Amino acid sequence: MPYKKIGKQTIVFSEKPYIAGRGNVAGQKEGQGPLGEYFDMVLDDDMFGEKTWEMAESKMLKEAMKKAIKRSGLKQENIDAMLSGDLLNQLMSSSFTARDMHIPFLGLYGACSTMTESLLMGSILIDGGFARNVLVGASSHFCTAERQFRMPVEHGNQRPPSAQWTATAAGAAVLSSRDTFDVRSKYRIRTESATIGKVIDAGIKDVNQMGAAMVPAAVDTLLNHLEDTGRKLEYYDVVVTGDLGYIGKDIMTDLLKGAGIPGEQITDHYDDCGTMLFSEEQDVHAGGSGCGCSACVFTAYLLSLMEKKKIRKMLLMSTGALLSTISPGQGESIPGIAHAVSVEVE
Amino acid sequence: MPYKKIGKQTIVFSEKPYIAGRGNVAGQKEGQGPLGEYFDMVLDDDMFGEKTWEMAESKMLKEAMKKAIKRSGLKQENIDAMLSGDLLNQLMSSSFTARDMHIPFLGLYGACSTMTESLLMGSILIDGGFARNVLVGASSHFCTAERQFRMPVEHGNQRPPSAQWTATAAGAAVLSSRDTFDVRSKYRIRTESATIGKVIDAGIKDVNQMGAAMVPAAVDTLLNHLEDTGRKLEYYDVVVTGDLGYIGKDIMTDLLKGAGIPGEQITDHYDDCGTMLFSEEQDVHAGGSGCGCSACVFTAYLLSLMEKKKIRKMLLMSTGALLSTISPGQGESIPGIAHAVSVEVE
Repeated sequence: MPYKKIGKQTIVFSEKPYIAGRGNVAGQKEGQGPLGEYFDMVLDDDMFGEKTWEMAESKMLKEAMKKAIKRSGLKQENIDAMLSGDLLNQLMSSSFTARDMHIPFLGLYGACSTMTESLLMGSILIDGGFARNVLVGASSHFCTAERQFRMPVEHGNQRPPSAQWTATAAGAAVLSSRDTFDVRSKYRIRTESATIGKVIDAGIKDVNQMGAAMVPAAVDTLLNHLEDTGRKLEYYDVVVTGDLGYIGKDIMTDLLKGAGIPGEQITDHYDDCGTMLFSEEQDVHAGGSGCGCSACVFTAYLLSLMEKKKIRKMLLMSTGALLSTISPGQGESIPGIAHAVSVEVE
Repeated sequence: MPYKKIGKQTIVFSEKPYIAGRGNVAGQKEGQGPLGEYFDMVLDDDMFGEKTWEMAESKMLKEAMKKAIKRSGLKQENIDAMLSGDLLNQLMSSSFTARDMHIPFLGLYGACSTMTESLLMGSILIDGGFARNVLVGASSHFCTAERQFRMPVEHGNQRPPSAQWTATAAGAAVLSSRDTFDVRSKYRIRTESATIGKVIDAGIKDVNQMGAAMVPAAVDTLLNHLEDTGRKLEYYDVVVTGDLGYIGKDIMTDLLKGAGIPGEQITDHYDDCGTMLFSEEQDVHAGGSGCGCSACVFTAYLLSLMEKKKIRKMLLMSTGALLSTISPGQGESIPGIAHAVSVEVE
């Protein structure tokens, strides 16, 4: 059997699984942002006809998944496994979506890195011959996350300028092996390699400084990915972090320069979903965040650019802050993680 | 590439990953139970020298993992990836353990099914050539779980007879590929196949009826596993569910009989970790539960029986109740899940 790991942390897919379908749902505010036209569905009401925000988030994930399956040309019964996660305690959104999907389910938690974690694990299932079609995804909701991690939304407390806005959004993709794929889609978008991230904690304790807390993990994963693959940053048309936001993106840029990557390469080839989802006029302070942020930017905007071949090589690197609902109150700092998946179009 | 999925939900490992090491830590009450002598470490104090129960649980997982690495004969830097999870919001135990381990980390959540989920995903990483050595594990702690899901422990509220006792325990294993393994261990214990479970919800809403809530998923996974592999229950020396407890085990037995499996096969070949961890005198009502229950029974007791070849073929089937901290309060019923991993000794 060929060994597929290279260097310290990177896997190279020998079969290069296909992204056969993509789907997404965005909240009202996200729909009013610069990427509004790219979303499959924009909600009029972030309750989505449900009685609770949590069930609304779960319904968004389900709709995103159903759209991804539809685009893939498959039937739901052709999906071998579903891998997803969210920010809610015990993955409430994913667990309740999985209850309605009747597909073998593996729950994942990587905080806001979950979209790449699911893409990575899904690609492994396909690439190793364990499945022919896998459904992956992630979701978040501003109201479920604010209540759970910070303040009840009804409290209307003032957010500091470093705070990020958890995206009300869900994104999903269907990954397929070559044998089932060739007959269906007109696009040839594939996952090529992936780097599993380490948990890194720079000691930040402020729950309104998420970007800064996640940067060290993002830098570590990116530098390891480049070293493992022998690539330069400019190899990729774009390297996209998940939700570092404006402050995190600035720190990331500084640290990459410090690591010897030329400034113009960073300017031309690096971006962050948290700075792409909302416009400055939307007053989200330090940018977007949440599992749904990179999930919807990837499945709505970035993959559509790949379909049009406006970008051909991309490294998606969702970033997660692994605080819990009680760890900051216990005096713990915020550990970060980032997984990277290289996606290319033929 | 060979396709490794058979039937509806089952994967057959072509390389049969080796369980190269195992480790576990148990709380004081668990240490006083019938399996006390099998644990690597039994705590005198369930705070384990930490300031919070959560950090105590995290330390238990870390110690179990370090013991598993030590038994495997590997060094920590030889481990390619760590896969684990726990019951705590945002996987607090696993996330903080991973922070100290400096190993690429994939967080999993399957409630009390997490030990089998990590064993299954870890086996996939090895079997597909994505890693040579993988660390898997799961943990739970009575005090962290009671506070989070039910009542503050200090409240001292009365537990109904159907309530189960969340195990204060952690279990871990090192999975290795053949090429790195052959030189080291005297045991030849391997994962042979695995069945990914579906989420099934029978409508139970009582958070003190966990066993009953998980049974339908356990039955579904087991019957699918037997159908996919063409095996009978008696093929396995023992089929072990995770934490259905006394009530759940009874319901499971009835449902399996209803599905046509002869009663004596069930009596002779089926057991549940939740009924094995504590003695009746320990007054845990309906039995043990928690991720740590099957994690410690598997890594301490069942694997030691395999080392002695007292059992040669085992199907480990940890079971999870996918309620969240708030879903019962929102009127939702409790979805269940069960993953199965077949383990054999040569």
